[in-house]
Amino acid sequence: MIDGTPLPLVGPQSALRADAVRNRALLLEAAAELASERGAAAITMETVAAAAGVGKGTVSRRFGDRNGLLQALLDRSEVLFQEAFLSGPPPLGPGADAAARLRAFGPALLRHEHAHRDLYLAAEPTPERRFSVPARQLRHRHVALLVRAVLPGADAELLAHTLLASVDVVLVDHFLRPGASLERLEKGWHDLLDRLLH
Amino acid sequence: MIDGTPLPLVGPQSALRADAVRNRALLLEAAAELASERGAAAITMETVAAAAGVGKGTVSRRFGDRNGLLQALLDRSEVLFQEAFLSGPPPLGPGADAAARLRAFGPALLRHEHAHRDLYLAAEPTPERRFSVPARQLRHRHVALLVRAVLPGADAELLAHTLLASVDVVLVDHFLRPGASLERLEKGWHDLLDRLLH
Repeated sequence: MIDGTPLPLVGPQSALRADAVRNRALLLEAAAELASERGAAAITMETVAAAAGVGKGTVSRRFGDRNGLLQALLDRSEVLFQEAFLSGPPPLGPGADAAARLRAFGPALLRHEHAHRDLYLAAEPTPERRFSVPARQLRHRHVALLVRAVLPGADAELLAHTLLASVDVVLVDHFLRPGASLERLEKGWHDLLDRLLH
Repeated sequence: MIDGTPLPLVGPQSALRADAVRNRALLLEAAAELASERGAAAITMETVAAAAGVGKGTVSRRFGDRNGLLQALLDRSEVLFQEAFLSGPPPLGPGADAAARLRAFGPALLRHEHAHRDLYLAAEPTPERRFSVPARQLRHRHVALLVRAVLPGADAELLAHTLLASVDVVLVDHFLRPGASLERLEKGWHDLLDRLLH
């Protein structure tokens, strides 16, 4: 919770039966192994099914489609990132004021996604889903709360989308190609905030 | 040109032979008819080939894939929008100062894309291509030039991406779903600029 507002955490919330949970963990383990050995591009419903020794239907029932599988695979590291900004040490976590937490959020997100870049790019949802992935909704809710605190007159919901778009993994990937640096993007986040807040 | 910088205009620039040009126009006509009758979702390489009475291979040779076809279909209206911001009347076109042109650009883009929303959403490129579509590169170059003029100390290239992301058609579509209005997004663009410039 932030300020008493319940937040949608990622991860399996439904009461899966124990064997279903084991089954899910087994499939994710196989997918993680595939990813570390051959890269995210090698992960398909078929390759994961084959690696786990089950039918493709089992993978489909558990994750829906490839994007669902990749999102699930990201959940573990996403949960660590969420813990960092929801309850970790300041300035990213509680204890620092809203401006300092917002300032720290962009670089933290940039570093986090960059560390899992291959998977995040592969898991990029289709346009219809881009803003409805639970992990993204949580990030947006968090940033909007901080924006509301530091810029009471602004449309916090909209401005949170704009801030998050400025460090979107697809934009970052495009931006880093011609030899730009992560530092330039972090500086850009700080500059944007400085201009907005002062 | 803006400030003497040549800009990449959309549209066929290569010297296609006359029959290839006619062929291309015929296919686009068939695609436009399909779109107006049954919506952008009905446009596939197969349906356009069938409607134009040619083989699927002909459509592939001309447009590459479905996204290339949809981009080509959008080119006609995109050219009108480009003319408006490159050489149309102020404040969007030349004659107004950079701040006024930048202020006018967001709402103009919002209105333009909203008018062709169905097609723009269908033509949304894959993540790898999202920032390399010529029409998008031209918009980015234009906004970056204006940002450079009004905020000489800023990373204009990066800030132009951020501004454009705030009115991205996929975000706008997501945002308008729960009953929000285009006016709120326009107000958001103006508010963002006011905070950046003052």
